[in-house]
Amino acid sequence: MLKKKNAVLVDGVVLNGQTIDSKAREQFFEKAFRMIIEEAVCKATDVTEKVCEWQPPEKLKKLLDLELRDSGEPHQTLLQLCQSVIHYSVKTGHPRFFNQLYAGMDHYSLVARFITEALNPSVYTYEVSPVFLLVEEATLKKMIEFIGWKEGDGIFSPGGSISNMYATNLARYKCCPDVKERGLSGVQRLVMFTSEESHYSMKKAAAFLGIGTQNVYFVKVDDRGKMIPEELEEQIQRAKQEGAKPFLVCATAGTTVLGAFDPLDKLADICEHHGLWFHVDASWGGAALLSKKHCKLLKGIHRADSVAWNPHKMLMAGIQCCALLVKDNTDLLKRCHSAGAKYLFQQDRCYDVRYDTGDKSIQCSRRADAFKFWLMWKALGTRGLEERVDQALALSRYLVAEIKKREGFQLIMEPEYANVCFWYIPPSLRNMEQDQEFWQKLHRVAPEIKERMMKKGSMMLGYQPHQGKVNFFRQIVISSQVRREDMDFLLDEIDLLGKDL
Amino acid sequence: MLKKKNAVLVDGVVLNGQTIDSKAREQFFEKAFRMIIEEAVCKATDVTEKVCEWQPPEKLKKLLDLELRDSGEPHQTLLQLCQSVIHYSVKTGHPRFFNQLYAGMDHYSLVARFITEALNPSVYTYEVSPVFLLVEEATLKKMIEFIGWKEGDGIFSPGGSISNMYATNLARYKCCPDVKERGLSGVQRLVMFTSEESHYSMKKAAAFLGIGTQNVYFVKVDDRGKMIPEELEEQIQRAKQEGAKPFLVCATAGTTVLGAFDPLDKLADICEHHGLWFHVDASWGGAALLSKKHCKLLKGIHRADSVAWNPHKMLMAGIQCCALLVKDNTDLLKRCHSAGAKYLFQQDRCYDVRYDTGDKSIQCSRRADAFKFWLMWKALGTRGLEERVDQALALSRYLVAEIKKREGFQLIMEPEYANVCFWYIPPSLRNMEQDQEFWQKLHRVAPEIKERMMKKGSMMLGYQPHQGKVNFFRQIVISSQVRREDMDFLLDEIDLLGKDL
Repeated sequence: MLKKKNAVLVDGVVLNGQTIDSKAREQFFEKAFRMIIEEAVCKATDVTEKVCEWQPPEKLKKLLDLELRDSGEPHQTLLQLCQSVIHYSVKTGHPRFFNQLYAGMDHYSLVARFITEALNPSVYTYEVSPVFLLVEEATLKKMIEFIGWKEGDGIFSPGGSISNMYATNLARYKCCPDVKERGLSGVQRLVMFTSEESHYSMKKAAAFLGIGTQNVYFVKVDDRGKMIPEELEEQIQRAKQEGAKPFLVCATAGTTVLGAFDPLDKLADICEHHGLWFHVDASWGGAALLSKKHCKLLKGIHRADSVAWNPHKMLMAGIQCCALLVKDNTDLLKRCHSAGAKYLFQQDRCYDVRYDTGDKSIQCSRRADAFKFWLMWKALGTRGLEERVDQALALSRYLVAEIKKREGFQLIMEPEYANVCFWYIPPSLRNMEQDQEFWQKLHRVAPEIKERMMKKGSMMLGYQPHQGKVNFFRQIVISSQVRREDMDFLLDEIDLLGKDL
Repeated sequence: MLKKKNAVLVDGVVLNGQTIDSKAREQFFEKAFRMIIEEAVCKATDVTEKVCEWQPPEKLKKLLDLELRDSGEPHQTLLQLCQSVIHYSVKTGHPRFFNQLYAGMDHYSLVARFITEALNPSVYTYEVSPVFLLVEEATLKKMIEFIGWKEGDGIFSPGGSISNMYATNLARYKCCPDVKERGLSGVQRLVMFTSEESHYSMKKAAAFLGIGTQNVYFVKVDDRGKMIPEELEEQIQRAKQEGAKPFLVCATAGTTVLGAFDPLDKLADICEHHGLWFHVDASWGGAALLSKKHCKLLKGIHRADSVAWNPHKMLMAGIQCCALLVKDNTDLLKRCHSAGAKYLFQQDRCYDVRYDTGDKSIQCSRRADAFKFWLMWKALGTRGLEERVDQALALSRYLVAEIKKREGFQLIMEPEYANVCFWYIPPSLRNMEQDQEFWQKLHRVAPEIKERMMKKGSMMLGYQPHQGKVNFFRQIVISSQVRREDMDFLLDEIDLLGKDL
């Protein structure tokens, strides 16, 4: 309690003494932590629990007390609220969450993330983030080693989409450095190239950076989803004939739907020939670099000018953990993005200010995303990370073999990576002629089964129509918690949920 | 252990059974958590402990074992590593960390952040993030209420800089919708306006979005750091006379160095007259909207088209927590940023897909940053947040009064907000004529004192040269853990560290 006789009042506010009841707060904190471990860590990764407790939006709003009021709630109410939040959230760490390009839970990463949240750093200057800047440097250096560059630069960014934007801006700066100051108005039309199967963020990058979505020339892919080099060559010629200026080729190492890897070496040849920036979006496929068995998927990546690689996906570092790596070693990243704010980046500091990396960034405050990856790498070693990749890909191969064995399952294509795409054909459709009616009916199967599995909470996997094909399932195998039995369960469950359709 | 007789081998990988020793992992997790609470929560916010344990980069590299190796480290080594990471990190939650526009530790937010890290959600579809999407919606709605709009839209983004980029892109899309598809090449030169005192991110936005830094017209400020409306009018006229197309005015509510608030009402008049998008960067000053006493600083903000507001700053929600709010209610945010990826945003889902907000974003995976702010708001109520603002501003006023009383301290200007800017003039300079030599010497005082305080670890506050003024201290008062005594300590300590200079 305040000693009133010493109270210092300014503007009606008492300035000395604290009214916070620290004992009650500690008790709340302790209880909340126990609940987090119980509900959001243990139960959330327990295969016998539900993946999700589905409720439609309007009903969920009623189940949760979302409204923000003038007065605060007591600790007991807050604990109940937190429990509900966890209860109705999707358990992305559950062994049967196969829905996105990330899944699972890594306990080392989680410890690192708790540390980061408690310390609440912002990574822009060595002064404020000495450890996390050095950790980022060490992590980038090691990733660069696996790409196969002798040296390089990089930055952790809030997502693969933003990494791809960085790469687009670097490519533009390299080709037209004046654009930074003068803008694109009056400049020759710039054109970038990426495959039809590339991530939609390239289109977003073109829109956001003022290049325009029409100036993304989408290159055809082969039946495996890989960019066709000859088609790229043709598109570059077309752009030149139109009087536009090609500046960037973005290859994909691990496409979003099919998990396809573009032929990097051949694309690098074309980029070299035309003097184009070669970016590889390995947000999803980059993990394979750590596997001696599977790194050949990215053969030629050392010839890239920049690489996007998200350890939060296959490697399970936690959202978000995304590196943009750059081969250049002449401070291009900084020259391209700097604004030289004097209030933040003083030059008269008592240490080597080259450690102040904030001006490489398009952000100001920036999270210490490298740390969780670094601690996980420390804990597991490269070999542990490699096993994680090998395990996921072996499980995918097992799943493919099972799909081939089972009636009513039809593989879309033999996968190279952890994306297993297939149709489930219910008994009622199995003897039909594959005419328009058949495809229309099949198109409705995956959404229907998805709805049923969500409502049951037994598992989650994605589906989509794609390149003229009707809705098919896309199963992503990542987590090291996943076992062979979960693969079997998945196929059994689809059959169970869909056999009456 | 594996039952070897049942082992299923694919590609040399055993697929059944887990080799993870879950007991050892649980013990590690328990120990790590105890250490985090002890070192990164309790000690890190204890006023009797150091704010930082300064080491220069090369020495710190030697003190930490940063290298990533083939083999993992044992749990004991990992715990020691984590302890070192915490030990050598700056304690931004410490009551004497006054260095940035954020500080302090809120335990409710911290609980929310632990939950988010454990659940590892990505906020793009209702399917995968039902709770966090609804929480974001409720939080944005409440923030919009405080801005004074009847309705609106918004998104949480990874930083105020990115929010400002969103606003710039929205303004451009509103004025020239074709740019999204066609790009800026061939389009009339676009010009945006912001004050000389605005955050450097506006320059970064212009560079990144292809507008060009030269097309940011910086408007003069008055001696309080506020944009001069007549100067804005003049700059708009100049742009028009040059044949360029003005499209955006960015006002600042709470500038980075001085904490100045632009006169929003007058600037809104000018924007209305010229039909320009009116963005208010209230990343720092937005918190004052919650205070009945101080919300007048932002008078007129309801006339903005968009507002950037970072609850991770004054309100202590934890980095990052940044909202971009938009008055438009015709889905502009989505129309401007969408790419319509079919694999992620299926239209044949079993719920109202308007809840799938991912296509408003320039990101793909996105963190659930609204949740920590929401839980904190739930715990403290609007009144608790209001007290936080009132307390910080009262402490700033107290500090100003003390500075005026003390010999050798000279206020740069009377602050409106929590930025207290001042010179410390050591005894040796106090009787000098204020000639060039005086200013040169004074310029070196703040860096020298900063170096000494860092090495001692007693506190941290920032300094910078600014608008022709030599290096002065910028003291930011935020944390609710801060008491009057910490203000007194700060001034005593500066005097102690600098009196021999």
